[in-house]
Amino acid sequence: MSSSRRYTLSLSCPDRVGIVAAVSGFLASHQGWITEANHHADADSQRFFMRQEILADSLPFGIEALRDKFAPIAAEFKMDWRISDSARKKRVVILVSKQEHCLYDLLSRWHADELNMDVPCVISNHETFRGFVEWHGIPFHHVPVTPDNKPAAYAKVAELFREAEGDVMVLARYMQILSPELCENYPGQIINIHHSFLPSFVGAKPYHQAHVRGVKLIGATCHYVTSELDQGPIVEQDVIRIDHSDSPDDLVRYGKDIEKAVLARGLRYHLEDRVIVHGNKTVVFR
Amino acid sequence: MSSSRRYTLSLSCPDRVGIVAAVSGFLASHQGWITEANHHADADSQRFFMRQEILADSLPFGIEALRDKFAPIAAEFKMDWRISDSARKKRVVILVSKQEHCLYDLLSRWHADELNMDVPCVISNHETFRGFVEWHGIPFHHVPVTPDNKPAAYAKVAELFREAEGDVMVLARYMQILSPELCENYPGQIINIHHSFLPSFVGAKPYHQAHVRGVKLIGATCHYVTSELDQGPIVEQDVIRIDHSDSPDDLVRYGKDIEKAVLARGLRYHLEDRVIVHGNKTVVFR
Amino acid sequence: MSSSRRYTLSLSCPDRVGIVAAVSGFLASHQGWITEANHHADADSQRFFMRQEILADSLPFGIEALRDKFAPIAAEFKMDWRISDSARKKRVVILVSKQEHCLYDLLSRWHADELNMDVPCVISNHETFRGFVEWHGIPFHHVPVTPDNKPAAYAKVAELFREAEGDVMVLARYMQILSPELCENYPGQIINIHHSFLPSFVGAKPYHQAHVRGVKLIGATCHYVTSELDQGPIVEQDVIRIDHSDSPDDLVRYGKDIEKAVLARGLRYHLEDRVIVHGNKTVVFR
Amino acid sequence: MSSSRRYTLSLSCPDRVGIVAAVSGFLASHQGWITEANHHADADSQRFFMRQEILADSLPFGIEALRDKFAPIAAEFKMDWRISDSARKKRVVILVSKQEHCLYDLLSRWHADELNMDVPCVISNHETFRGFVEWHGIPFHHVPVTPDNKPAAYAKVAELFREAEGDVMVLARYMQILSPELCENYPGQIINIHHSFLPSFVGAKPYHQAHVRGVKLIGATCHYVTSELDQGPIVEQDVIRIDHSDSPDDLVRYGKDIEKAVLARGLRYHLEDRVIVHGNKTVVFR
Repeated sequence: MSSSRRYTLSLSCPDRVGIVAAVSGFLASHQGWITEANHHADADSQRFFMRQEILADSLPFGIEALRDKFAPIAAEFKMDWRISDSARKKRVVILVSKQEHCLYDLLSRWHADELNMDVPCVISNHETFRGFVEWHGIPFHHVPVTPDNKPAAYAKVAELFREAEGDVMVLARYMQILSPELCENYPGQIINIHHSFLPSFVGAKPYHQAHVRGVKLIGATCHYVTSELDQGPIVEQDVIRIDHSDSPDDLVRYGKDIEKAVLARGLRYHLEDRVIVHGNKTVVFR
Repeated sequence: MSSSRRYTLSLSCPDRVGIVAAVSGFLASHQGWITEANHHADADSQRFFMRQEILADSLPFGIEALRDKFAPIAAEFKMDWRISDSARKKRVVILVSKQEHCLYDLLSRWHADELNMDVPCVISNHETFRGFVEWHGIPFHHVPVTPDNKPAAYAKVAELFREAEGDVMVLARYMQILSPELCENYPGQIINIHHSFLPSFVGAKPYHQAHVRGVKLIGATCHYVTSELDQGPIVEQDVIRIDHSDSPDDLVRYGKDIEKAVLARGLRYHLEDRVIVHGNKTVVFR
Repeated sequence: MSSSRRYTLSLSCPDRVGIVAAVSGFLASHQGWITEANHHADADSQRFFMRQEILADSLPFGIEALRDKFAPIAAEFKMDWRISDSARKKRVVILVSKQEHCLYDLLSRWHADELNMDVPCVISNHETFRGFVEWHGIPFHHVPVTPDNKPAAYAKVAELFREAEGDVMVLARYMQILSPELCENYPGQIINIHHSFLPSFVGAKPYHQAHVRGVKLIGATCHYVTSELDQGPIVEQDVIRIDHSDSPDDLVRYGKDIEKAVLARGLRYHLEDRVIVHGNKTVVFR
Repeated sequence: MSSSRRYTLSLSCPDRVGIVAAVSGFLASHQGWITEANHHADADSQRFFMRQEILADSLPFGIEALRDKFAPIAAEFKMDWRISDSARKKRVVILVSKQEHCLYDLLSRWHADELNMDVPCVISNHETFRGFVEWHGIPFHHVPVTPDNKPAAYAKVAELFREAEGDVMVLARYMQILSPELCENYPGQIINIHHSFLPSFVGAKPYHQAHVRGVKLIGATCHYVTSELDQGPIVEQDVIRIDHSDSPDDLVRYGKDIEKAVLARGLRYHLEDRVIVHGNKTVVFR
């Protein structure tokens, strides 16, 4: 992350001539300095996608005025749009269970200020990482999940997320299936890391499924959570080579390295407003 | 391939103490010089796999005597085994349709003597590559396949394969589904390249399926053909990164590069007796 | 390649506010439909780079009128610029020696119409591939190179390139070092594939150098040729994993797969005007 | 790591017929159950390398008796050899400076018991990570290094390493160049992670060097430290793709992900006795 403050405009709208001209003309008319720009036109849906990073100091007004002045253009082109401010870090609530690799990785990046986020709290169904999290000065909430208390547990998770004023919930190998209500209340705001190269090996024990099938690569998938298990829009994926000598336990171990890398990349794209959900797919302006 | 003549012993048997000692003791007693050795013990099935490359000139006898002398050890340990001779190139019959990438790639490697194979003929359901194949001095057979003539067509393919004294049939994007009889008559001898990262996207138009699902990597799979479509033992796989801006046509184009690379690697493993089929999986001693 | 005709505008100029607005405003004013757009601002040099693909049919005039109308904007912003037409395929003269892998790969892609190019001729210092090239209907020129005839030989190569009205010369493992004059006469028009991951292992026998150093990956580099050996602007690179068991001959064999893939990608970027040279580096809008 | 106790025999010796037979015959005569075996014959030096993992419980005696009984065979074949015991975890002293990514990654793996090691202490030239390390129950030593105190500082490091009964020293982005004496006193025992794909970009600020040269991939190298800077035997390497839009700061950020992955893999190979140093190269039995 460059240290200069940026406003990021991201939008989608029906495709037509003149969108880029209107947006860039508007920004130029106010001396807006564009530091990064990406476009995409989806041929199937005839929809246009755009992301612009603007140097905040180059504009003679603040983000509210920018939004006000841009609104008429957005209306004219029927845009779904948002403008975010790099100085307002997104608030990421991390949910973990008993595995440490994603949690350590995310807090290492948080500690290095590598991801533009605050972590208002960590929620877990186990006490395992209380000390580790609290050492970082981050509140830790233990919300046990049992076969009998799921509605109450997820209500508690939602309440903690609201109280923390969370922007995004990250399931860092949380190992629990959230309730459909929770998924539906936060579309595009819950990020999961699944330990397979989806759509292969949906559901439980994907590394064991991979071992049985005899694949030569295993993978991980970062996706937005929807009420359909492992079917949400994919943000990022990667794979690692294995061979016949690797046991399911080896796959689990190798897989961790891919899981944490893929989750961190996917989360970064989300935090920098590089992801636009489009139906059940994503546009990711890397 | 080193130019020195090698005998390759590959085997599998129930695992127990003393297999390596017996085999290596046998070879050492005849001054056999081992140039490459690989072992694998499968924990689930308690089966042991082994491959040994021996310098032919280091032995005081030929391959037939080697087989005779080794047979009692093989019997004692209940081995499935074979010994091949690098001086006897495997005969590879290539089946193609109208796409050139795998055919050009295989013939380029054949021309460079990079793969230890002879190509006694190429079979196609189209005339497209007759001139190209014949320019290389390789016979070309046109066997049209229509919805009505399939049994006769595949009988013709099998007949040409027998006449060519083929060891292995390579479906280099052949685009036709062989008959179950043909598949069952040549287990472990028919190699296919499927244009997806199996088990994802079985069957037709996998790149279009991948585009619809919005995956971030696409792949290819080299596998032995069985009578169940795209379900045979996997020999080799690989993937390539794509993004939202890639159309299905782009995926087809990128995919070609992975297909030809994966097929060539899988075929090389087969030609060098590096692959041992084990149930529906493979041990590949790379 | 989409089959629709495109004009591609690529440019660089000193960075300032309003460049995108001016260009996109100009295109929109003529109903130009942008199918792909990329920008880059180089922080060190304060230079701006841009590439726009425009649907030819969306404009009410042809490429000459487009150039005329755009010229005043280009002058205002002090742009280095060009507009190319996808209907006018670039003419690629391929230079080879005795190795086949890059030649087969390029002609396979040419045969499949996968690269938007014509191949007016192939030039070689050996007769090896005359038959193969001529089978494709492409003229083949044998220009022997000896220690004594180099100036004459390269003068002949340059003459053939001019006569062929070549746009770009591709050294597809040509194995000869061109004369400084030739390199300087065609800046950004001669593409080489070097068989190492530059800047490691400049010069001769890079795979042997890699073997001696004990690296765990080997690579290939596609770059524009300058008069300094292996020092020109890099267009594309890739690597492949090796290990201690690989001999220099194995590295040569593995390396071929990377060489042809990297050369094909680099050439495609060049043919689609995705590469802008900037000092001794490149901007590549993939 | 499987939880079963293993003895690992690793050796090198002049190549000749009968080595494998002698070793495997010896093990079989004592009912030794081999769980993993690897061989390598180096053609240039005519030297043979071998690694055998034996199930400890399969032998009727302990490691000392194993060593005693094996010694005559070792002498006969002039072997450099060692036998290690998985129940005796190697003691890894980690040296860090102010960057957290490798330290978090290693301690995450230590916490998960993924690497077969103890960490008797962490040494740093800064106080930054005292709290983090001590939270894990690991002693932390602050040894400041200034231009004036280097001999004393490195003497202190050596003393702490001895007191900790360290087996291996890991420079986890330590950012200091050890004294030649220290390097020479612990050959094959000091592991460094260098932030470039060696031999490119030796020395300081390799990411900036990479940015200036305009490479398209950056890498990291795990190697044993010798008294020649960045010239020691390479254990593991990997790369990551970058492009023109990445600033030196971006390269630093991307590079971290490769550094920690490559260091963790290299360290695991070392801890499992998979690495045999051979001149300035390594045999790595993965």
